[in-house]
Amino acid sequence: MSELDPTERLLRSCRGEPVDRPPVWLMRQAGRYLPAYRRVREQVTFLELCRDVDRAVEVSLQPIDEVGSEAVIFFSDIFTPIPGMGVEVDFAPGPVMAEPIRTAAQVEALRVPDPRESVPYVFEIQRTLRRELASREIPLLGFAGAPFTLAAYLVEGSGSRHFGTWKRMLWQEPELARALLARLTEMTVGYLNAQIEAGAHAVQLFDTWAGMLSPAEYREWVQPSHREIAAKVDRSAAPLILYVNDGAHVLEEAAESGADVVSLDWRIDLAEAARRVGSRVSLQGNLDPCALAAPPETIAKLVADLARDAAPARGHILNLGHGCLPETPVEGVRAFIAAAKGLGASA
Amino acid sequence: MSELDPTERLLRSCRGEPVDRPPVWLMRQAGRYLPAYRRVREQVTFLELCRDVDRAVEVSLQPIDEVGSEAVIFFSDIFTPIPGMGVEVDFAPGPVMAEPIRTAAQVEALRVPDPRESVPYVFEIQRTLRRELASREIPLLGFAGAPFTLAAYLVEGSGSRHFGTWKRMLWQEPELARALLARLTEMTVGYLNAQIEAGAHAVQLFDTWAGMLSPAEYREWVQPSHREIAAKVDRSAAPLILYVNDGAHVLEEAAESGADVVSLDWRIDLAEAARRVGSRVSLQGNLDPCALAAPPETIAKLVADLARDAAPARGHILNLGHGCLPETPVEGVRAFIAAAKGLGASA
Repeated sequence: MSELDPTERLLRSCRGEPVDRPPVWLMRQAGRYLPAYRRVREQVTFLELCRDVDRAVEVSLQPIDEVGSEAVIFFSDIFTPIPGMGVEVDFAPGPVMAEPIRTAAQVEALRVPDPRESVPYVFEIQRTLRRELASREIPLLGFAGAPFTLAAYLVEGSGSRHFGTWKRMLWQEPELARALLARLTEMTVGYLNAQIEAGAHAVQLFDTWAGMLSPAEYREWVQPSHREIAAKVDRSAAPLILYVNDGAHVLEEAAESGADVVSLDWRIDLAEAARRVGSRVSLQGNLDPCALAAPPETIAKLVADLARDAAPARGHILNLGHGCLPETPVEGVRAFIAAAKGLGASA
Repeated sequence: MSELDPTERLLRSCRGEPVDRPPVWLMRQAGRYLPAYRRVREQVTFLELCRDVDRAVEVSLQPIDEVGSEAVIFFSDIFTPIPGMGVEVDFAPGPVMAEPIRTAAQVEALRVPDPRESVPYVFEIQRTLRRELASREIPLLGFAGAPFTLAAYLVEGSGSRHFGTWKRMLWQEPELARALLARLTEMTVGYLNAQIEAGAHAVQLFDTWAGMLSPAEYREWVQPSHREIAAKVDRSAAPLILYVNDGAHVLEEAAESGADVVSLDWRIDLAEAARRVGSRVSLQGNLDPCALAAPPETIAKLVADLARDAAPARGHILNLGHGCLPETPVEGVRAFIAAAKGLGASA
């Protein structure tokens, strides 16, 4: 097959159509591991950066020139749309609520505003990126946090190893938990559709904490909101990628979410994942970000292994199994992307 | 089958022999969720409690009368034997190294002392517990941290979400990582055998962090030390239970470790686990500790479901999928154990 441009390659892979080789990008590719990013961050706080259109565009684009990425995800945070719901959030560096959401009155008070009014800068960033990227034919990715993960932080009040307060709510006040998830699901649908309208070629839903549940709990508390989002987001305009961290045990459920692509962490062999999902979805992933500390030739072999293991899947997007870490060596990221670009036709 | 005593029931379940009903105990059953435990802890620090024979015996026994547990695990911490290797550790509340272990010189300097000399109080606690328990026919469990988990803390210096320093060492200095694991494996074998000599009816190896690895990494970095421990611990005197937290994706590897029992967290259905392990091992687990916040009748149903799902396994020990949390309601623990005791013959 002749060489595709990066946008076409990504979209075809999402939809399970033949491609010349797997597309490649990295979760959290615009981040502290990049010296160019750290220089921008010295001038502003994380929150300021998310709301500063020029700087957010600048750091979003850095991975193209700095490491050779073939897709751009707009710089932001899964908590960006939350203040617009009437919740006070700070970053330290994870999200910290001024007041955890634990009562029916608090849930009822959550607004679902038009995101174009509550976070206009998000779409300004995306429209600008889309213009900047047009000449390079590089695709723009939008994203949102999944309702279960947002709710976990909102109820717990911050990150947590066990999220015990949130998980106890599932058992003790299931109706309250359901109401909170419903509100967040409605918000997420509007937020993703507005991103697609602003120019995102594809959108990714990040469910960082859903993997903490048993399969039965996942089917009750996570899968319904994924399905609602997949049904209501305009997937004909932009494919939906679903990332479930630590989700090897709920892969079938993720494959039945209605998403076009399931993005996996490194805890599952892609060959096994491809067998288990069949032709229902494409796969994205899944190198352990810590493996980017290995020598370039080892990374090249790991990338070749991933592509080989994922070959039976209907489509495969090369990526990490989790975001780049602050300690990730830049050379490791470059080696990963270079190896991906060096792969032959895979379809 | 006529009613077995709790020791016989546990040992038979470990070995896959018929029992009247599944035995039951809870990981971290002696802990902060118990008011009686908190009263003791008000008088001493965590470290003092681990070394105070009378108080450690007292809190080890509390779960028998307070919640009805049918097995006693001696009160201690996986880091108890580490200072004897020449490493300065504090608890805050997780283990914190005065100096993380990151060089070959530090690894070579690690001692493997006779545990009866370095931590004599451990065996004094166990001998005392064994005497106290004899009249009630309740079994005594010993335990140790697995080498991979101990190494993760030693190299990282403390707990961590990603243990990036330790995982980078696996890729950048594999020989150093291997030397550290070898030293810890040797220590663990001696430590567990001394516990068996002191009277432990069974011993559990806790691998809290091994589940962070991919299946391929697990086979390289975790499974060899499990196998060595299973081969060198006197399993004819005391069965070996292997707990791998977040290990649904490495269940087959755990089942081939040589351990008698694999203890699972709640992220896997026991029915699926039983199918996957076949007759190689018995299973232990696996209720999500957060589910103990549910009403007693819900807990009773969950316990019945676990027993039903695990019935095809060669043996099953009812337990949680992780330790009791400080916020776990005592009534939930009581309901869990009462429901287990109410189960009919399962074999």
